[in-house]
Amino acid sequence: MLKANDPSLHSWIEIAADSDFPIQNLPYGIFRTDTRDPRVGVAIGEYILDLCVVGQQNMFELIDLDPNVFHRRYLNDFMALGKPIWRAVRNRVSDLLRNDNEEISGDSNLIRQCLVKQSEAEMLLPVKIPNYTDFYSSEAHATNVGAMFRDPANALLPNWKHMPVGYHGRASSIVVSGTSLYRPKGQLKVADADAPVFGPSKMLDFELEVAFITGKETQLGQSISPAEAEDYIFGLVLFNDWSARDIQTWEYVPLGPFLAKSFGSAISPWVVTLDALAPFKVKGPEQDPKPLPYLDSPGHHHYDINLEVLLQPKGSMATSICRSNYKHLYWNISQQLAHQSSNGCNIQIGDLYASGTISGPEKDSYGSMLELTWRGTQPITLSDGTQRQFINDFDTVIMRGYGERHGIRIGFGQVSTEILPAG
Amino acid sequence: MLKANDPSLHSWIEIAADSDFPIQNLPYGIFRTDTRDPRVGVAIGEYILDLCVVGQQNMFELIDLDPNVFHRRYLNDFMALGKPIWRAVRNRVSDLLRNDNEEISGDSNLIRQCLVKQSEAEMLLPVKIPNYTDFYSSEAHATNVGAMFRDPANALLPNWKHMPVGYHGRASSIVVSGTSLYRPKGQLKVADADAPVFGPSKMLDFELEVAFITGKETQLGQSISPAEAEDYIFGLVLFNDWSARDIQTWEYVPLGPFLAKSFGSAISPWVVTLDALAPFKVKGPEQDPKPLPYLDSPGHHHYDINLEVLLQPKGSMATSICRSNYKHLYWNISQQLAHQSSNGCNIQIGDLYASGTISGPEKDSYGSMLELTWRGTQPITLSDGTQRQFINDFDTVIMRGYGERHGIRIGFGQVSTEILPAG
Repeated sequence: MLKANDPSLHSWIEIAADSDFPIQNLPYGIFRTDTRDPRVGVAIGEYILDLCVVGQQNMFELIDLDPNVFHRRYLNDFMALGKPIWRAVRNRVSDLLRNDNEEISGDSNLIRQCLVKQSEAEMLLPVKIPNYTDFYSSEAHATNVGAMFRDPANALLPNWKHMPVGYHGRASSIVVSGTSLYRPKGQLKVADADAPVFGPSKMLDFELEVAFITGKETQLGQSISPAEAEDYIFGLVLFNDWSARDIQTWEYVPLGPFLAKSFGSAISPWVVTLDALAPFKVKGPEQDPKPLPYLDSPGHHHYDINLEVLLQPKGSMATSICRSNYKHLYWNISQQLAHQSSNGCNIQIGDLYASGTISGPEKDSYGSMLELTWRGTQPITLSDGTQRQFINDFDTVIMRGYGERHGIRIGFGQVSTEILPAG
Repeated sequence: MLKANDPSLHSWIEIAADSDFPIQNLPYGIFRTDTRDPRVGVAIGEYILDLCVVGQQNMFELIDLDPNVFHRRYLNDFMALGKPIWRAVRNRVSDLLRNDNEEISGDSNLIRQCLVKQSEAEMLLPVKIPNYTDFYSSEAHATNVGAMFRDPANALLPNWKHMPVGYHGRASSIVVSGTSLYRPKGQLKVADADAPVFGPSKMLDFELEVAFITGKETQLGQSISPAEAEDYIFGLVLFNDWSARDIQTWEYVPLGPFLAKSFGSAISPWVVTLDALAPFKVKGPEQDPKPLPYLDSPGHHHYDINLEVLLQPKGSMATSICRSNYKHLYWNISQQLAHQSSNGCNIQIGDLYASGTISGPEKDSYGSMLELTWRGTQPITLSDGTQRQFINDFDTVIMRGYGERHGIRIGFGQVSTEILPAG
C-alpha cells in the first residue's frame, strides 16, 4: 500500500465523514482568490492547501523540484516532473496534513497562509490540454446506441470488441465545472424533410464520462504497452461530453462526431491521482475475443467508482437521474492509452482521454438522456414534476463520483454545467 | 491592390524567375542556424530575412509592436497582434527589400546580419497548433471515395452538399517538411478474415491538401460569418494528411478516422499570407443546393493555386504523379471557418484547418494513391521503372504549390516526407 493511502491516517484539519477530500485523496487543482493569483492547490476537506505557499516555506526542500512549479496557471509543469516526484509530493503533503505533524498546524499564522477555504476560491481549468480523445468503451452504451440507430440484432459493430474505438475531439472548448455553456446551433434535419434547417439543437444531451490525463510524453514512433501505461497517467477527472443528438445524427456519417460535440465539454476541477485511486482497482469484464497482444492487460486496471448524474432546473431541487459506475467499461485506461499510441502517435503532457459514456446494465445506470429516455420516447419526471426528454435551457447537469473502501471515501467533487439559451 | 502585391516591385536581392519567393510573396516561417536560435523569418528568393535582427535595428519602430515578438519559437505571438499589424509588417518588409530602398541594402555589414541563406537554415514547425480540423471539401475526392467504398450510384452522402463535412484530427503529430515518419502499425482486417491482425500498414497513402491557419481567436458561443472569416485567417500551408487506408477501413465506423491518421501529418514550413494570395482569388463552383444563410459566401473566395505531388524512391529521381489545383474545392475556407464556429466552438490562434484531399476532375489530378491507383488496382509506374499501389518504405512524397499571374509566381515551397519502416 502507498504510504499516503493508509486508511488509519487522520488530518489535523477536521474533515466531514462524507467529504470527497480526506487525507487519503489529496487531488490537485488550480485555484485563485481575490489575493492569490492562479496556483496549484490540494483539496483537503473544505479547504485548499496552497502548494505555492508551502513551497515558499521551503517545505519541499527534500524533493528535487523548483517550488515555483506550483506558481503556475496549469498543472502541466508539475506533471512534467514525472511519477517519482508526483509520489514524493503526495507523501510530503500527506505528512504535512497528518494529525501528528506540527510544521503547519503548530503555527496559526502559517495555517492562515497555507489554507484557503474552497468556498472563497475560484477553481480554474487545471490542465492545458493539447490533445483530447474520446473513447467509446462502455459495452452497454455502444449496444444501446447501436440498437437505437442501427440494428438491435447487431448493435455492436464488428470492430468494437477488437479495439477501444475512439475519435479525436476538440480541445479548445473543454471548460471547467461552473462554466455555463450556450445551447449550440447547427444543421438539423428531420428524417422526412428534404433539406436541413439551421437553428438551436432540440436534443441537447450530456454524456457521463471519466477522463484520464497524461503526465508523461512520448516521441513520434514510440508506443506504450498496457503494462507501462500507468506510468504515463497522472490522474482522473469527471467529464461531461455535452452532445447535440440532432446535429450529430445529420453530420456524423462518414467522418464521426464534429459540431455535435465541439461546442463544449466540461471537467471537474480536481485531478484525482491514480495513486489515490489504487484501493479501488478491480478486475474488468472477461474480454472475448481475447485482445491482440498489444492490448493484452492482465490484472486489475478498472476502478470501482460510483457515478451519479443530477439534473437541476433553475430554481428547483436537483433530481438524481442516473447512477452508474466507472467499472462498467469494457476497455480499461491502460488499453486505451496503448491503443492510442500503437500507431506511433506521440502522447503529450496534459492530453485528456475520456472514457465514452459510462452506462451500466440497468436502465437507471444509463449515462445519457438519449438512453435514459430511449431517444425521447420515455421522458424522465423530475422532482418538481416537470418532464425531460433532453436538456432544457437553464437546466444544470451535475455529475459526481467517489470510491469508498475501508470507510475511506475518495471523491472527485463534481462537474456542473448550466445550459444557456442559444446566442 | 495591396501595396506589397504590386507586380512592378523588384528587390535588391536577385531572385530567379521560377522562385516561389519573389518580393510579392513574403511568407513567414521559423528558422534556426548554428548561430541563431529559433526566430521568425521571411523567405525572399534563396534567402531568409531575419525579422529578429530587423527588429533589433529598430526598423519596425513605426509599427505598434514589441520587436521581441519575432524572437520566438512559433509565429503565434506575432499572429495574435491582428491583421492591421500583419499588413503593416508585410508592407514594411516589402519596403526594406525593394530595389530603391537602402536601409539594409546600403550597408554590407547589415546585409550579412539580416540575411541568411535558406540552404544554411533549418526550418521548424512554424505554428504551435492547439486544434486541427480536417475537412473533406473536394467533390471529386468525396465522390471517388464514396464510389469505391460505398455505392457508385450514390457516391456523395446526403449531408455533403449541405455542409463542409469535417472531423477533428490529432494536433500533436503534425510535423514540418523534412521530418521522416515511421510507417504506422495498426489493426488490419482483410474482408474475409475472421479477426484482425496487428502489423505495419500495407496501404500507406498521402493526401494532397492545403490548410489555413487562424491568427485571431473567438470566445465560446461566438460564431464567425463567411464575410468575417478572412479577418481570422493568417495564411496557408501545404498539408500532407498521411493516411493508412487498411487501418482506416477497419476502424472508422462509426466514429471516423483515428489511428489511420494520427501517426503523422506534414506541413510546408512557410506560411503564405492570405494577402499575398489575393491575386489568385477566383470564384468557386456553383453551389446547388444553395447553402444555408450561415454558409452563404458570395464573391471570390477560392484560390487558383497549382498543386503537384512527386514520389521519389530512395536513390531515384522523383516522378510527378499528380497535378491538381486548390480551386477544385466545393467549399471555400470562409465557409469552412463559418461552419466550424457555427455551433459556438471557440477558435484559437494557430488552429490548423485542412481542406481534405484536393482531387480535380481528371484522373491525373487525384490527390491520393487510393484514387490514382483506384484502390491499388491500377498501379502507377515511376520513372525508375518500379510500380506503386501505395507508398513504400524509404519513398519520399513531395508536394508543391504556387499561383502565377501577371508574370508573378507566389509559391509555397514544398512539404516533403520520407517514410521509414515501422519501428
